[in-house]
Amino acid sequence: MRTTVAIIGAGPAGLLLARLLDAAGIESVVLESHDRAYVERRQRAGILEHGTADALRAAGAGARMDREGLRHTGIELRFEGRRHRVDFPSLTGGRSVTVYAQTEVCKDLIALRFRGGGPLLFGAEALAVEDADTDAPRVRYRHEGRESVLHCAYVAGCDGYWGVSRAAVPAALSRTYERRYPYAWLGVLADAPPSHDELVYARHDRGFALLSMRSPTVSRLYLQVPESTRAADWSERAIWDELDLRLATDDGGRLARGPITATSVTPMRSHVHEPMRHGRLFLAGDAAHIVPPTGAKGLNLAVGDVVTLARALVAHHADGDPTGLDTYSATCLRRVWQAERFAYAMTAMLHRDPDATPFDDRLQLARLDRIATSRAAATDLAESYTGLPFDDEGARKGGTPEPR
Amino acid sequence: MRTTVAIIGAGPAGLLLARLLDAAGIESVVLESHDRAYVERRQRAGILEHGTADALRAAGAGARMDREGLRHTGIELRFEGRRHRVDFPSLTGGRSVTVYAQTEVCKDLIALRFRGGGPLLFGAEALAVEDADTDAPRVRYRHEGRESVLHCAYVAGCDGYWGVSRAAVPAALSRTYERRYPYAWLGVLADAPPSHDELVYARHDRGFALLSMRSPTVSRLYLQVPESTRAADWSERAIWDELDLRLATDDGGRLARGPITATSVTPMRSHVHEPMRHGRLFLAGDAAHIVPPTGAKGLNLAVGDVVTLARALVAHHADGDPTGLDTYSATCLRRVWQAERFAYAMTAMLHRDPDATPFDDRLQLARLDRIATSRAAATDLAESYTGLPFDDEGARKGGTPEPR
Repeated sequence: MRTTVAIIGAGPAGLLLARLLDAAGIESVVLESHDRAYVERRQRAGILEHGTADALRAAGAGARMDREGLRHTGIELRFEGRRHRVDFPSLTGGRSVTVYAQTEVCKDLIALRFRGGGPLLFGAEALAVEDADTDAPRVRYRHEGRESVLHCAYVAGCDGYWGVSRAAVPAALSRTYERRYPYAWLGVLADAPPSHDELVYARHDRGFALLSMRSPTVSRLYLQVPESTRAADWSERAIWDELDLRLATDDGGRLARGPITATSVTPMRSHVHEPMRHGRLFLAGDAAHIVPPTGAKGLNLAVGDVVTLARALVAHHADGDPTGLDTYSATCLRRVWQAERFAYAMTAMLHRDPDATPFDDRLQLARLDRIATSRAAATDLAESYTGLPFDDEGARKGGTPEPR
Repeated sequence: MRTTVAIIGAGPAGLLLARLLDAAGIESVVLESHDRAYVERRQRAGILEHGTADALRAAGAGARMDREGLRHTGIELRFEGRRHRVDFPSLTGGRSVTVYAQTEVCKDLIALRFRGGGPLLFGAEALAVEDADTDAPRVRYRHEGRESVLHCAYVAGCDGYWGVSRAAVPAALSRTYERRYPYAWLGVLADAPPSHDELVYARHDRGFALLSMRSPTVSRLYLQVPESTRAADWSERAIWDELDLRLATDDGGRLARGPITATSVTPMRSHVHEPMRHGRLFLAGDAAHIVPPTGAKGLNLAVGDVVTLARALVAHHADGDPTGLDTYSATCLRRVWQAERFAYAMTAMLHRDPDATPFDDRLQLARLDRIATSRAAATDLAESYTGLPFDDEGARKGGTPEPR
């Protein structure tokens, strides 16, 4: 088989890239190792930055998001029984985020691809990217029991942390940056109306908790748990009781409970691979970088990567302009490191580190107190949460335009 | 001997408190274990926050500071050969800092005290604070070879980290918070004109460096060094060469050199003692808290403490109103923890931790990049650097007034 862009992976990165290339009239083939039901069902992120929502709209994938997604104009921080709301629009000149699950983004993009785009092969496992540093790279893959080769002009490695794309960058040219955290998230999906209308991030002596939602009837809740935890270690009742403890405020109130329909344990990790390009192979999304979920940045980074990549591929393929491809890695990495910084800061501020000293605990509270008392500190958070712009120029300027 | 307020220690905290009490007509005795020459010569901090300068003026101790001090309206950050200036007035609604050495502040306050205030005994070593939790506390001290007792209504423990005051708070009622850093500062005083007209904070792979000044002809410079360093380990030439390396920018330039007149090694430590009050004993300044010097907060916290304490003592002694004394510890600690937060953040962002991973290094650069690209992040820094207000109300509001 032969195409212009071989896209490995049908997560949000690969699917959105395929859509953007379809729209620009550039051929692509998407290879996805799992089946469609798996991709449309695996629970992942659910917070779309301002710019991510705009990118989906521009790609023609925003209609259902705009109908069913929930616009959120702030988050609530809870600590020491207090609440503090961070209001996004007033701090960032009007920005907000959209609560719309990654599963739904994927469903919308899959439907669009099947409605008129190029091939999207489920159950097609990429085995290796070959000759990435030549003009004629190839992807070897297995589909319906047979090994095949996909010849192409460019390869987009959108196959996540465990995929084969990253391995095609020679070790001698790669630098990896890694941090593990000594805790994990126990995530639950519950048929219960969210007990607050915005996300609540709670710092508690017993550990972090997050109240989130998928829809007006489905709650998404998280508890910080020890690294080795298995979901089965926790009964439904123990989960609700612990959430009530950690999310408690001085003004009372308990969570609305309902049947828990799914549980999972997510390890916490920061990981960055540099560079994000090797010859004609371009890494995007989790294939190049992982952030701990606290800042809700993973999906948004993936979208930023492929928006930048699509623009660069169009410029190179249509006009022979290599600038975008040449600057792709540096442009994306600048945003990536800002997201890593933010995700680290949110994680460190809110979680109970088993090795934390009493000094560290006080520092956490001082950081939260700072956000609650300084407009500048709250703005810094709000800008980072609602998202830095995708292009390098914007990233250099930082987010909210400066008043002159 | 008998007085109203026994002040232990003639550093800036003790001396300013004495001055404020003199001005309010409240008797005090200051006991200082060292001689006058030592107090007037020991090199310490030199950056006065906006509010500190105001407090000295209000105390009638601002004349020489206003004549000889240098008003600084920003600092420069250097990293990866780049420079980024943080402009204080435009970010904070007009604030600045004053470069005026602690030695000079002490000289001015000593002169004022001798011109018409109560007793100030040099070479008077406090031995113990007794009966602090009664209405009649005492300070035992040794002066000119003789042990004596100072009877008083209140004790102000302004005798620094190594002083006896803190020990008078029963261990069962005390909580201490501590962090040590695996490096120290080698500080030099040089008869050389400062090579930049504002302070320069440099993050370099070889370690942190700080270019500072005492006057237009005297430079104050610092190098991050390993914890066990002795000043004698470094030749003059090695110091200048290392400063040149770490302060280098892409646009070139070397430091103006001159004779080094003093060197010292300062350990880096964070320490907070809670509470800052026990009965009629009130801890202020280094006796209660130590910050690493990176944020230039030590002297300023001391001034904030005694301004708050003087107000409270006047209200109690004159009007019998105990509110200020009762809230003294909580009011001060709120500012103290914000200073600890800021000093920790500046220290972590700029120093080379021997155990830092490549991920940690990248995070440092991302933090610096954030300050260089986000007005909100730069404002957060500028507010913290120029200083939070002394009163609790202001601390709760965070620094710069919010636009409405």
